[in-house]
Amino acid sequence: MNPIADQTADQVSHLGERALIKAITDWLGDCNPSSPRGIGDDAAIISVPQEKAVITKDALVFKKHFDETTSPYQAGAKLLKRNISDIAAMGGKPTHAVVACLIPPTISLKWIQAFYEGLRDCANDFSILIVGGDVASTFEDIAFTLTLVGEPGTRTLERKTGNPSDTIWVTGSLGGSILGKHLNFNPRIPEGSWLSNFPSATSAMDISDGLATDLIHLCPDDCRAEVNTDCLPLSSASFELEKSSGKTAIEHALTDGEDYELLFTIAHSVSPNSFIKQWQEFSDLPVTQIGKLIESEDPTQSKIRYIGSGIGGESEGYEHF
Amino acid sequence: MNPIADQTADQVSHLGERALIKAITDWLGDCNPSSPRGIGDDAAIISVPQEKAVITKDALVFKKHFDETTSPYQAGAKLLKRNISDIAAMGGKPTHAVVACLIPPTISLKWIQAFYEGLRDCANDFSILIVGGDVASTFEDIAFTLTLVGEPGTRTLERKTGNPSDTIWVTGSLGGSILGKHLNFNPRIPEGSWLSNFPSATSAMDISDGLATDLIHLCPDDCRAEVNTDCLPLSSASFELEKSSGKTAIEHALTDGEDYELLFTIAHSVSPNSFIKQWQEFSDLPVTQIGKLIESEDPTQSKIRYIGSGIGGESEGYEHF
Repeated sequence: MNPIADQTADQVSHLGERALIKAITDWLGDCNPSSPRGIGDDAAIISVPQEKAVITKDALVFKKHFDETTSPYQAGAKLLKRNISDIAAMGGKPTHAVVACLIPPTISLKWIQAFYEGLRDCANDFSILIVGGDVASTFEDIAFTLTLVGEPGTRTLERKTGNPSDTIWVTGSLGGSILGKHLNFNPRIPEGSWLSNFPSATSAMDISDGLATDLIHLCPDDCRAEVNTDCLPLSSASFELEKSSGKTAIEHALTDGEDYELLFTIAHSVSPNSFIKQWQEFSDLPVTQIGKLIESEDPTQSKIRYIGSGIGGESEGYEHF
Repeated sequence: MNPIADQTADQVSHLGERALIKAITDWLGDCNPSSPRGIGDDAAIISVPQEKAVITKDALVFKKHFDETTSPYQAGAKLLKRNISDIAAMGGKPTHAVVACLIPPTISLKWIQAFYEGLRDCANDFSILIVGGDVASTFEDIAFTLTLVGEPGTRTLERKTGNPSDTIWVTGSLGGSILGKHLNFNPRIPEGSWLSNFPSATSAMDISDGLATDLIHLCPDDCRAEVNTDCLPLSSASFELEKSSGKTAIEHALTDGEDYELLFTIAHSVSPNSFIKQWQEFSDLPVTQIGKLIESEDPTQSKIRYIGSGIGGESEGYEHF
């Protein structure tokens, strides 16, 4: 759906800022509490029972993170789910969001309504309150930013806190998200929460830029990752893309972004079989050991060593600019 | 200063996303704590000692909220101060910020560095930690959004909670902010905090869209505001503009945006003289009674009635779209 409306009567400019904010409040419905606990005052008051909070912020830009082939309803949900995935990776539980909407005056009212409806339904699915935000006019770009606040888990799952010989794991399957998963993914809140309660989970993050890039950021300074490419949980979308992309399914699993799976390490004292057994007692989601951390004090060495029959060498990852 | 750099070597695109995030972390210095309390993980952990927090979000768009005549250093500070003013208006104290930077690849590195330095120095002035954010690439627009979290005051100052006969007050002076104050303003944190502790303060907000617009949103549903235009604290900038703008200083004070002063009501049981005396014991900042709330059950009536020699009638305020 084209976010730009040709007819003035269908555009946001026709409504005006105040009426737009009123409309947004209506579209959000019950997930927006009454002021001062929601939209309507200079700021909102939120409850933070644990005396600490986890906070993250992510943006969504039209033609960068989604395009005309994405329904605005899905785009709205994606903006929130990207942030939920970040909270999941810390072991937390999302509770409150504020959203900024940066749009040109020509944007279609129907489009923006569907966007907020997608945001609302996703917020309701995860029991998140949308308590405020801002609308601002741009010249051309359509962008949204969302800040998500949540309750931390039992422990905070960090990056770079694993130890040599710890095993490296991923949830679900990897690669080919462009065929649909980049919109349809389920942020791994239950799994992050479980890991936060599992004392032998030594580090975690979510996979947003692709395994080969993100794994570099998971590795502690004194370690590198050894990845067995024969063990990667390849998605069916990776095999589908392989037919025409000129890349192997393994390459898709390593380099495609937006898997939104969890990437984490488990203390080497826990055997892989024992970990899988404990995992399966709580979740049906596949979990796969893809490698382990190995000690490496040499900063000139690549952070990832690939073994297995699939691919050799290293990856420098993906840059947005 | 032009935010777009002609030479590739001077552009953000030359640096790449990861190096840009590293550079931003360096520019922010001490106001960005180490991960997981600052930038560097999927999310940040913040301390919220009062078990509740106040949260707000505001955007800053190039050529809408600032332009080439604004130094990037001032623009960075302005983004933060706009949000601080919102927290002040609730009676709170700002503590943590996350910021999203939406920029085209051609943006000047020097420009963006100065922007973050302005943000940093302002954060340090107000003891605010910048704990995270996002950078995303746009096609044309330059925009920033900032979410500010803070500790609520003793009481939360809301809009629309005044009562008939309550007196209406503003801090400082009004109008003509375009001549400089829209950048140089001081968010009224001490004053908001004092009002939060003053039991007879019945409602408050900050003046961002102009008194005539914002006052409509301060008024409870069963009241209108009676404003004596002879009493408005006119800024010297309003008189300066009057010479060439074709508008009177009073009109500037009523309709110019971005004063970032506090607009609030005091219970009618407190005499204006008594209030001024108590105010002056804590602050040198001028405070002025501009009118009072009057009961009005008629929804067809304008929310503001002007008296005095300056202006008659009503105002519909300013719309961004």
